[in-house]
Amino acid sequence: MHQVRVAGTGLTPFGRHPDTPSRALFGEAGGAAVDDAGLAPGDVDAVYLGNYMGAVAESQGHMAPLAAEAVGTTAPATRYEDACASAGVAARAAVQDVRCGAVDVALVGGVERMTHLDTPAATAGLAAAADDRHEVSAGLTFPGAYALMADAYFDRFDADRRDLAHVAVKNHRHGADNPYAQFQREITVEEALDAPMIADPLGLYDACPFSDGAAALVLASDAAVDERGLDAPVAITGSGQGGDTLALQDRASLTETPATAAAARDAFEEAGVGPDDVDVAEVHDCFTVAEALALEALGFYEPGEAAGAARRGETARGGRIPTNLSGGLKAKGHPVGATGAGQLVDLVKVLTGVRDAGAGAGGARVGLAHNAGGSVASAVVHVLEVVA
Amino acid sequence: MHQVRVAGTGLTPFGRHPDTPSRALFGEAGGAAVDDAGLAPGDVDAVYLGNYMGAVAESQGHMAPLAAEAVGTTAPATRYEDACASAGVAARAAVQDVRCGAVDVALVGGVERMTHLDTPAATAGLAAAADDRHEVSAGLTFPGAYALMADAYFDRFDADRRDLAHVAVKNHRHGADNPYAQFQREITVEEALDAPMIADPLGLYDACPFSDGAAALVLASDAAVDERGLDAPVAITGSGQGGDTLALQDRASLTETPATAAAARDAFEEAGVGPDDVDVAEVHDCFTVAEALALEALGFYEPGEAAGAARRGETARGGRIPTNLSGGLKAKGHPVGATGAGQLVDLVKVLTGVRDAGAGAGGARVGLAHNAGGSVASAVVHVLEVVA
Repeated sequence: MHQVRVAGTGLTPFGRHPDTPSRALFGEAGGAAVDDAGLAPGDVDAVYLGNYMGAVAESQGHMAPLAAEAVGTTAPATRYEDACASAGVAARAAVQDVRCGAVDVALVGGVERMTHLDTPAATAGLAAAADDRHEVSAGLTFPGAYALMADAYFDRFDADRRDLAHVAVKNHRHGADNPYAQFQREITVEEALDAPMIADPLGLYDACPFSDGAAALVLASDAAVDERGLDAPVAITGSGQGGDTLALQDRASLTETPATAAAARDAFEEAGVGPDDVDVAEVHDCFTVAEALALEALGFYEPGEAAGAARRGETARGGRIPTNLSGGLKAKGHPVGATGAGQLVDLVKVLTGVRDAGAGAGGARVGLAHNAGGSVASAVVHVLEVVA
Repeated sequence: MHQVRVAGTGLTPFGRHPDTPSRALFGEAGGAAVDDAGLAPGDVDAVYLGNYMGAVAESQGHMAPLAAEAVGTTAPATRYEDACASAGVAARAAVQDVRCGAVDVALVGGVERMTHLDTPAATAGLAAAADDRHEVSAGLTFPGAYALMADAYFDRFDADRRDLAHVAVKNHRHGADNPYAQFQREITVEEALDAPMIADPLGLYDACPFSDGAAALVLASDAAVDERGLDAPVAITGSGQGGDTLALQDRASLTETPATAAAARDAFEEAGVGPDDVDVAEVHDCFTVAEALALEALGFYEPGEAAGAARRGETARGGRIPTNLSGGLKAKGHPVGATGAGQLVDLVKVLTGVRDAGAGAGGARVGLAHNAGGSVASAVVHVLEVVA
């Protein structure tokens, strides 16, 4: 088995690119990742693309060869889709293939464009990640789904809207320091609490925005890194994936996300580390309550304890487990098919010292990425470590 | 490295199931494959789903966990999409993961439903597999794309519409013997030649139909087969994938498909066999000319020689290289996201003696599956061999 190294990363700014087709967005991020690795497009053995709604939003299916072409290669290219976890599953596939020696150099990433759609069309496109027959046809969209989960959480535990407002405030504060973030401005707890309600108990600032953007990484085997003299100090040492029923109604609990727990278990086992070893995390905060659910399922907090983490300052820069230093989906933005790859890029920034985690002298050495699809019917977890 | 065995297969009839959602179609095929393997849904470690247009045709993205659920598992589930090669790339991912030991038992397959759409909607949905900005927006759909390729072929080589009519006649003859085929009836060369023109020089019988259906296989490592005492005499010994530009206009030639050639090269190298060793093939005949292009790129024929193969009887049962004994996409049908898995299921039928290839005393021992996406911007080739 080879060790899987991150040899290069690339991002477009996340935000509004309504007139830029996905192929061009991926060309920018993918090209930047190849350049950052010190490689040429012809060095890429295979392309792994996350994209969720290109067929609906751009009348463009079969996007993987097009994305590869935009980077300058006709290498084998495949699209992976698990809703908002699309780039997570793409990255997982690349990790497996590099690890096993099936490919030496993988270009993995994702892209999405949706801000050219009007709000009803974008909401409908996103809702297709829920169960069309048993949820969407009954009127449920994702703000509603996560509102049900937040309600259940508030009902079961000692937590309230103010706790969640602190999650939004913390992620906006982080986003303010990220030049690639969609929202580079701080908000206050009162602003969050006073914002229009979108699905009770979730207000506007509890939700991530519609976003366009792309993210990409070059992954290479340790052998390829050595042979080609690449600069690749960070390794992906663990990868896990979990599944669950698509519809909330079929779950035993609305406050637990077993798909995340299963993914974390496998990723930690592969990496040989546990939650206590993790210095920094990027987790899937499509809604503020999702950050709390993730932190609990990942093992950082006991059930009911994570909603208050931001309020207590534990998940901010310099805290016990700095979470979403990029700004998270909340402030960095959520170009659906790109998000899982963007999380990995942002963790590499922290682990290589480009972004400060406030971890003190030794810096952050172990990072965790958590990418979820739908109401966590799919979840992917990766563990990254500084190894060189 | 483990050997990858086929432990079970399942199919729905291919054809018209306009009122059956994809989840139910996959539940039927996937459940049959698990049953055929003598396993339970809980034995499945991961689900690999090919689907092309669920988000457009059924307002249902994130279909992989739903398909898994229909079989009775919440194992990690991922959707793979490369247009008409979606199940091919799904199968390739499963092969890689089983081979490397990442999973012991994989459920792989694909599903599509499209006959509930009217013809313009289905045609538009399929056209999204071409380049929306440089082909579709100029009026090109797939019948037109393959008509351009047929025209170029006729221009360059000594071949004509009658040659292609023989491909249709041959595949209809094969389909007549397949109880799962959409068209179980023979046609004549004159019927094919006299049929309405759909895109000159291609007539109605040069094209595959719109189809619904699902196909699935259980793949298991040789270790898992031995441990659990499974009956799995066929192995997938080679897997390859190739890519190309999405738009025809960017290709050097309209009569060559380098993505197929690249996929075949890698698959043959892995299996340690060559074209002369192959006893039976299922190739991607979305249009009759595509069968000829595939047979040439796969190395079975020199350029310009394959169009006449059906006319000369070489690709029929008992011929030199029996091709599309299932009826092919032409007569068996083409539920897009299921097709690549269906080809593998049909090859297993031949290699296990369920379907006669007319290969004589020893029977067929080596089979090849070729699944293509779009106008062959993606191609996947698998080699199957009887090993036990």
